[in-house]
Amino acid sequence: MPTISNKGRHMPASPIRKLVPYAEDAKKRGIHVIHLNIGQPDIKTPKVALDAVRNHNIEVLAYSMTEGSEEYREKIAGYYAQKDIHVTAKEIIVTTGGSEALSFAMGSIMDADDEIIIPEPFYANYNGFATAAGVKVVPIASSIEANFALPPISDFEKLIGPKTKAILICNPGNPTGYLYSKEEIQQLAALVKKHDLFLIADEVYREFTYDNKQHYSILQEEGLEANAIVVDSVSKRYSMCGARIGCLLSKNKDVILTAMKFAQARLSPPTFAQIASEAALETPQSYFDDVIEEYVARRDVLITELKKLPGVKVAVPQGAFYCVVELPIEDADDFAQWLLEKFEIDHSTVMVAPAAGFYATPGLGKNQIRIAYVLEKNQLVKAVHILGKALKQYNSNS
Amino acid sequence: MPTISNKGRHMPASPIRKLVPYAEDAKKRGIHVIHLNIGQPDIKTPKVALDAVRNHNIEVLAYSMTEGSEEYREKIAGYYAQKDIHVTAKEIIVTTGGSEALSFAMGSIMDADDEIIIPEPFYANYNGFATAAGVKVVPIASSIEANFALPPISDFEKLIGPKTKAILICNPGNPTGYLYSKEEIQQLAALVKKHDLFLIADEVYREFTYDNKQHYSILQEEGLEANAIVVDSVSKRYSMCGARIGCLLSKNKDVILTAMKFAQARLSPPTFAQIASEAALETPQSYFDDVIEEYVARRDVLITELKKLPGVKVAVPQGAFYCVVELPIEDADDFAQWLLEKFEIDHSTVMVAPAAGFYATPGLGKNQIRIAYVLEKNQLVKAVHILGKALKQYNSNS
Repeated sequence: MPTISNKGRHMPASPIRKLVPYAEDAKKRGIHVIHLNIGQPDIKTPKVALDAVRNHNIEVLAYSMTEGSEEYREKIAGYYAQKDIHVTAKEIIVTTGGSEALSFAMGSIMDADDEIIIPEPFYANYNGFATAAGVKVVPIASSIEANFALPPISDFEKLIGPKTKAILICNPGNPTGYLYSKEEIQQLAALVKKHDLFLIADEVYREFTYDNKQHYSILQEEGLEANAIVVDSVSKRYSMCGARIGCLLSKNKDVILTAMKFAQARLSPPTFAQIASEAALETPQSYFDDVIEEYVARRDVLITELKKLPGVKVAVPQGAFYCVVELPIEDADDFAQWLLEKFEIDHSTVMVAPAAGFYATPGLGKNQIRIAYVLEKNQLVKAVHILGKALKQYNSNS
Repeated sequence: MPTISNKGRHMPASPIRKLVPYAEDAKKRGIHVIHLNIGQPDIKTPKVALDAVRNHNIEVLAYSMTEGSEEYREKIAGYYAQKDIHVTAKEIIVTTGGSEALSFAMGSIMDADDEIIIPEPFYANYNGFATAAGVKVVPIASSIEANFALPPISDFEKLIGPKTKAILICNPGNPTGYLYSKEEIQQLAALVKKHDLFLIADEVYREFTYDNKQHYSILQEEGLEANAIVVDSVSKRYSMCGARIGCLLSKNKDVILTAMKFAQARLSPPTFAQIASEAALETPQSYFDDVIEEYVARRDVLITELKKLPGVKVAVPQGAFYCVVELPIEDADDFAQWLLEKFEIDHSTVMVAPAAGFYATPGLGKNQIRIAYVLEKNQLVKAVHILGKALKQYNSNS
């Protein structure tokens, strides 16, 4: 028998993967499962994007340009200019989702056994891309008590060694909802310049900031041109996760030149999705205003309800649409499974994402869960109600 | 300054990438460039596929299932059953192009420094995926004199060592057009079983076989279930290269389980493209019959014309839509550039793909080019006419 690879063996499975069969079983038993576990927004995709695809006049569905069409990249540059991020079409590579941008970024700057420092908790798939690239993730803990703010720069410096090639942040953060301040970005900028590291920022939630807070992109930071790599995506911005279009941005010519070689190997990003994404740039500001208003209302309801539960700690998110919640339990994996297997109120239960999968340090986040507030307010109220009753019963059982 | 990765430095650029600026310059000078260099078919995409996308009723363009929808995979299994390839939906992972299937396959079975044996000349992007995975390509030469048939098994055995994990074939071949016989597949099957290797077959040109020759898939070979991995794609079959949909097939559960972890990291394949690809399965057989008839006619014209040129050697393709041609010159890179820079007949010239980029052994294929016969017959005749005149002039100059 031929054998699979070591990295294949070590590739992490999705943190909720093992819960999926329990959710399916619950549904088979007639239980309504409220999904707090996934970042799939229920928000409608802008009509202009969907219509553009409906009205396509393609006869031969040919390869597009490897880096995305000139026209689309010019328009993307226009979008960034509105956000005070100044890039040219040549500094943009259109990718198959933010995922591919991240994978090109890692491949372009790191070899096997190189190290990348990432504040934890972090988007679990960073582990997957790092493992696939043979790269070692060096986590640096941020804490729920500090709302998951940037850890002290001195803590970063302790972790930087000869193998360290980059620092990766997600801003605003999945799963934390934390929005890094301009000052925090500037501290990171000084650090990566001092140590000749890359700073990769996953800014796919750029549009989702609340309470009048402004997003500050690493590409707005002067003097960081050689170090900064931004990963972006249309998935959440326009609620079009299924398009699979993102981009990689850098003012470092070597990075773009190298990432282009990875891009050439996979030929081109998907054509229909590029048509949708290009049209999506016409989405009126009112769409975003409505969406932000809705997310703020959802967040407020969710946090208010969660804070009513005894022993529950929650970091108030200022961006994205996730929050990390600490529960008065020992093992969120067990609790999440129990919710699906053994608990219901009026034939309903909730599915949550245990947060341990968002940490690289073993043992951290074991009593935490991630909640995505991509459901309507009444569903969120109901879900927290169920969670409260469930915690009581779970803790009285054990 | 932070520095890019070693593998980024060694990622091969596309074999025709350096010719592109010369082609652009020629076009600016008003020269009509006939593209013999790319595998982008001019054949129309089936209307049923394009219409399905036009008629989509999506409101939220959500992530699809990581492995592709159950329904689509069931239909893919139905397609294979018609080809006497018996797989279940669970043995299929839908991917973003054949490219991604190949990348998942390599990642699932090989670690950095592992080796994969590939008969050369081979599809140049295999180098890219291998470099990205840190894997070493061990080439085994096939020859134009033998029409690029499978090299003797004893030659393979000499190359198998402790690091060897797999053999990769493309059947029918790009760039060779060679169709492996059932006997050749069986020889390979015995070899990989003897040495516990994987056999990866890129079968994206399965549909394109000529002269009543039948394609024999490695998945038709009994007893090879643990070893066989097939890479497939809708790109060429339905002339929908821009969709970016392919799949990975294996009856080895460990391979599917591992590839699924890579697939989860990138979330899902593109949704619109899956709609098109699922509908494309309804394409009537008459579409393929017409396409095959057209390619046979093109091949026949091309080969007939090429054989008239003095000193030109050509391997007659029995599948796909490429052929490798040996020219009475020393350096096809130089000749291809010269064609674009210095040559024209009535304001027309041709662009060819120098074949050296399809070989891993330095020096091999230097006097060869790859021609893709994805143009109409009169264009092919004109192109070979230009090539003939050009060869005369090029050789009289030097």
